[in-house]
Amino acid sequence: MMHKSRKPIFQGALMSEHEDQPGFCLPMRVYYEDTDPDNMVYHPNYLKFMERARIEWLRSLGFELDELRRHESLALVVRRAEIDYLRPSLFSDRLTVTVAIHSGGGASLDLVQEVRRTADATCCCRGQMRIVCVDAQTLRPRRFPKNLLAAITDVH
Amino acid sequence: MMHKSRKPIFQGALMSEHEDQPGFCLPMRVYYEDTDPDNMVYHPNYLKFMERARIEWLRSLGFELDELRRHESLALVVRRAEIDYLRPSLFSDRLTVTVAIHSGGGASLDLVQEVRRTADATCCCRGQMRIVCVDAQTLRPRRFPKNLLAAITDVH
Amino acid sequence: MMHKSRKPIFQGALMSEHEDQPGFCLPMRVYYEDTDPDNMVYHPNYLKFMERARIEWLRSLGFELDELRRHESLALVVRRAEIDYLRPSLFSDRLTVTVAIHSGGGASLDLVQEVRRTADATCCCRGQMRIVCVDAQTLRPRRFPKNLLAAITDVH
Amino acid sequence: MMHKSRKPIFQGALMSEHEDQPGFCLPMRVYYEDTDPDNMVYHPNYLKFMERARIEWLRSLGFELDELRRHESLALVVRRAEIDYLRPSLFSDRLTVTVAIHSGGGASLDLVQEVRRTADATCCCRGQMRIVCVDAQTLRPRRFPKNLLAAITDVH
Repeated sequence: MMHKSRKPIFQGALMSEHEDQPGFCLPMRVYYEDTDPDNMVYHPNYLKFMERARIEWLRSLGFELDELRRHESLALVVRRAEIDYLRPSLFSDRLTVTVAIHSGGGASLDLVQEVRRTADATCCCRGQMRIVCVDAQTLRPRRFPKNLLAAITDVH
Repeated sequence: MMHKSRKPIFQGALMSEHEDQPGFCLPMRVYYEDTDPDNMVYHPNYLKFMERARIEWLRSLGFELDELRRHESLALVVRRAEIDYLRPSLFSDRLTVTVAIHSGGGASLDLVQEVRRTADATCCCRGQMRIVCVDAQTLRPRRFPKNLLAAITDVH
Repeated sequence: MMHKSRKPIFQGALMSEHEDQPGFCLPMRVYYEDTDPDNMVYHPNYLKFMERARIEWLRSLGFELDELRRHESLALVVRRAEIDYLRPSLFSDRLTVTVAIHSGGGASLDLVQEVRRTADATCCCRGQMRIVCVDAQTLRPRRFPKNLLAAITDVH
Repeated sequence: MMHKSRKPIFQGALMSEHEDQPGFCLPMRVYYEDTDPDNMVYHPNYLKFMERARIEWLRSLGFELDELRRHESLALVVRRAEIDYLRPSLFSDRLTVTVAIHSGGGASLDLVQEVRRTADATCCCRGQMRIVCVDAQTLRPRRFPKNLLAAITDVH
């Protein structure tokens, strides 16, 4: 329901003209804690890397998730993830994790996130993440605060 | 390419007549290590739970992943995951993780996996996972061994 | 201070006559999520295994940590850990995690925990854990509830 | 045995004159993946933070663990850890993780590591870690390579 009716107010930012200028990049390193017995990044960990990038992206826009929770009883939760595991990344690789808006509005936001090897820009993992704004107590969807939405659309 | 051309040799087992009899169930508990600051299971961890169930499913059919790797240089890797986060599960919840075959053949297998609260059968998380059979050294796709494929199709 | 002055009300249970009858055992399996690039259990994960055993141990005595938190604003936190990594444990190993009381009283409890390979009883990891009872809001130490302490001492 | 007989060739560097000049500092952030239901860093994760700092410390001296493994069949493993959990650190905290040599020689090295809140230098967690140099295949202890030992002692 919610997903059908939401209007894509800034749809396609990444997919069209800005594809090579992702909205936000977080550099990071692969440590032992991230790897599996194949010496590759363990597949669930890409979801952690993408979350780190979302946190730093919001921080770069002036929003701290713990303050949103405390002051506005607001939480952002992952409702759906489509993840393509394209190439392995290995221990000690430098990675760049991107965040770009695909579409969104109302209470939900679809992001495209990539985890690229910094050395050669190989895309190791690509995710489309649906993030939903919820009340931190009831977990019910609520509209994104206007200032948050404005900050996101302005930058992208 | 690979995905387009593979023939669905046992497609739809779960989706049609066996939906309420999933092929395999793993019971488990939620511990602190699994939860996030909302006291809910942290979203990447559902991928771990689903992997646990796949490991135990193959074990129940007589296949140990470390032996496949050692003796046949074979590894199973996640190539794609579509995850829907439907309801929270909480600390100390008993969960049941299912494995059922959606379609497959050749070098790849699409599984449907659910993580349900055991108490009331609420589906908390549902994933469609594309598992690819690869050579453990080169990571190139290779056909599933016949005995493995036979065991899987027979049971479902 | 606290540590010096607390009286060891049930010291030595494990160390002396009951060493081969540990107070509590949790059986478990090693999955991929637990292993590192050496195919061995990644060293911080033994702390998770020990926590799982403590949770199940308290559950076996009738205490649920989330209820203690909700109803009595009580949390148990790890204040100190001494961990000896003795032998590797590997993917698919069955493990047995034990909990036994070393000493305790007041607001703190010293446990000895072992992670043993079930097949041959090899001790892979041994920890001495100081658990402190705190107020869940203030995190200040408070005495263990009498019924909890009674349950623990009675069983051991 | 090994521990008794090894000569402390550079013992006490941290403990005495250099205490306020730790050998190496890694800055980092606390993300959601690191926290527990109390919104604090989950206690096993401090071991991950300390490992990250050891990896970056060796990197700063010119040593990459994956190359040591590949070219010299050498691995560094944690044999013993004494961890004091002193203060909580919370989501979004900036942390500084230090590495300093306590004593060592032969095949083993005792490090003192601290995880401090960057804002006010509060020490949240302090660990004394015994790291052993082993053959990556047999896992048997072997002497540290001379160039590695020289690099470590020179800097501290």
